[in-house]
Amino acid sequence: MTVATQHIQLDHGTGAVLSGELVDFIARTLGDVYVGEMEDSAVLPVEGDRIAMTTDSFVVDPPFFGNGDIGKIAVCGTVNDLAVSGAVPRYLTLGLILEAGLSFDQLERVLTSVRETAREARVQIVCGDTKVVRAGEADQLYLNTSGVGFFLREPLRMDAVRPGDAVILSGPIGNHTVHLLSIREGLGFESRVLSDCAPLNLMIDSVFAAVPREAVRSMRDVTRGGLSAVLHEYAGRMGKAITIHEQSLPIQHETAMAADMLGINPLNCANEGCLAIFADPAAAPDIVAALRGHEYGRHATVIGEVTGRDGAAVVLRDADGRESTLQPLRGAELPRLC
Amino acid sequence: MTVATQHIQLDHGTGAVLSGELVDFIARTLGDVYVGEMEDSAVLPVEGDRIAMTTDSFVVDPPFFGNGDIGKIAVCGTVNDLAVSGAVPRYLTLGLILEAGLSFDQLERVLTSVRETAREARVQIVCGDTKVVRAGEADQLYLNTSGVGFFLREPLRMDAVRPGDAVILSGPIGNHTVHLLSIREGLGFESRVLSDCAPLNLMIDSVFAAVPREAVRSMRDVTRGGLSAVLHEYAGRMGKAITIHEQSLPIQHETAMAADMLGINPLNCANEGCLAIFADPAAAPDIVAALRGHEYGRHATVIGEVTGRDGAAVVLRDADGRESTLQPLRGAELPRLC
Repeated sequence: MTVATQHIQLDHGTGAVLSGELVDFIARTLGDVYVGEMEDSAVLPVEGDRIAMTTDSFVVDPPFFGNGDIGKIAVCGTVNDLAVSGAVPRYLTLGLILEAGLSFDQLERVLTSVRETAREARVQIVCGDTKVVRAGEADQLYLNTSGVGFFLREPLRMDAVRPGDAVILSGPIGNHTVHLLSIREGLGFESRVLSDCAPLNLMIDSVFAAVPREAVRSMRDVTRGGLSAVLHEYAGRMGKAITIHEQSLPIQHETAMAADMLGINPLNCANEGCLAIFADPAAAPDIVAALRGHEYGRHATVIGEVTGRDGAAVVLRDADGRESTLQPLRGAELPRLC
Repeated sequence: MTVATQHIQLDHGTGAVLSGELVDFIARTLGDVYVGEMEDSAVLPVEGDRIAMTTDSFVVDPPFFGNGDIGKIAVCGTVNDLAVSGAVPRYLTLGLILEAGLSFDQLERVLTSVRETAREARVQIVCGDTKVVRAGEADQLYLNTSGVGFFLREPLRMDAVRPGDAVILSGPIGNHTVHLLSIREGLGFESRVLSDCAPLNLMIDSVFAAVPREAVRSMRDVTRGGLSAVLHEYAGRMGKAITIHEQSLPIQHETAMAADMLGINPLNCANEGCLAIFADPAAAPDIVAALRGHEYGRHATVIGEVTGRDGAAVVLRDADGRESTLQPLRGAELPRLC
């Protein structure tokens, strides 16, 4: 620590010398993943004639949790949004809104996570911005990451999904939400149920290495709104029913227990490292194998299929073949999970 | 208004049906400047083999002011950061952090400003993100815009500035800060001193149409930290003194009066539509003429020059030729002006 104070002050956000010291601290902590040049814009080479672009703000409560923090989530969220479009994530921006009084130790912890996750995902932080608000005008810190990726393959689109396609899930659902709620509510589950927060782009690359591009119709990272929101989005877009085999859903035992205790459904839970892939059923075994070969996809499995049945429903089929309709949630009242 | 409630609720941020309604409302209000496709990433054509990329978060207090609001500032800030690098701003992302309880009317007002300013600046909003935090966890709303621009000309760099270069200012300083502080403090100046908030990219285009690219060494929009911060940044980078002619500084009379009353120096005030251009002195008259031909540059003028004198000082010269050194501000204690 070479900054003159141990806590963020309003003056760190006002553009004068203290602001400069804060920017230096950020750049130094981000290390080699930060390629900003202190100009107003970064000038960056692009490959191809199309880019992917996305943005996400992060207001995670609590910002520090068992196996991650808001910095890790902020990189993963934007990397994953780019990667599921078929792009190779390359450049990230980093916007910080800091509450006065935040300690430099906490900021350093977040920036270290940003650095390590960016390294893992092989992306660069190309520019940043920092604002400071008065105590009580934010809850510790909020982040925004926006990202640009390149298309080394044809972009994926929702509209490519068709009846008969398999629905593949890359890993267990519910863990991120249960982990955070357990910390918030003091339930004690957080050491047994970890957040799934992870950058998925390299795992997605391994899927494309295993099967032809056309076999993968579309994919989504399963975040806010949970798997239910993703399935309803696709069913609604196609006007066809999607059937899910309940017993095939990967849900960790402790997660199911905790969700039950909390009165929440893992299908509605936010995740931060889980992928839903809509694919040619003939390619599904190879896709599942490719996912399972990656540390973030060990529990990958086919969970259902797109049917030819008209109507935008999501149908749950239990082990005995009984069907029920999964209703879309109007609200979830589980704020600030990402 | 076709949303089921008049105020933002936590559930508008949780990814379920209410989130979808909010996103629809945002897309509808943004109208034709919004080209998002409700995929996780936008897929966008690029021109050339380099892009400019920048990010800015906005925490303006108050978010609504006399001749603008946080939405207008959010578009101008990012458009201007791209344009001063020599890029043509093209794509903007829009991240919203909303405090529960914010009215849809207020949100609509902000989004309408985003739309109108994006139209004026000829940029598109290509994707967005919305988070809702509990009442007391933000102050109404915070925005982030990140942007991508194309280089139809060679990028501008600080390092191109050299001794002898003229320093040109496109318009009066201090107005944005005085306008906002007058509202905050109830001073009654706000109707006589308006914010200068404006997208400067088309005015910058007119400068490049008037003089050869090489005549313009580098430019900055004069925002947080004020003209003082910009001049100190350049002087520090070059290790040369910059001399400013005090009597040539464009400062509106009411602004000087209000600044005096508030105990602040217009040189340290944040602006939102003011440009500092470092240029070949031979081209300075044509640049000033080009600026004055544009509504945001009517008061453009040469304010000083880069000297050959060693040392990173900013020197103020008064009408009698007396010189004093402008000290960089350590902090300004004027938070949330942008």
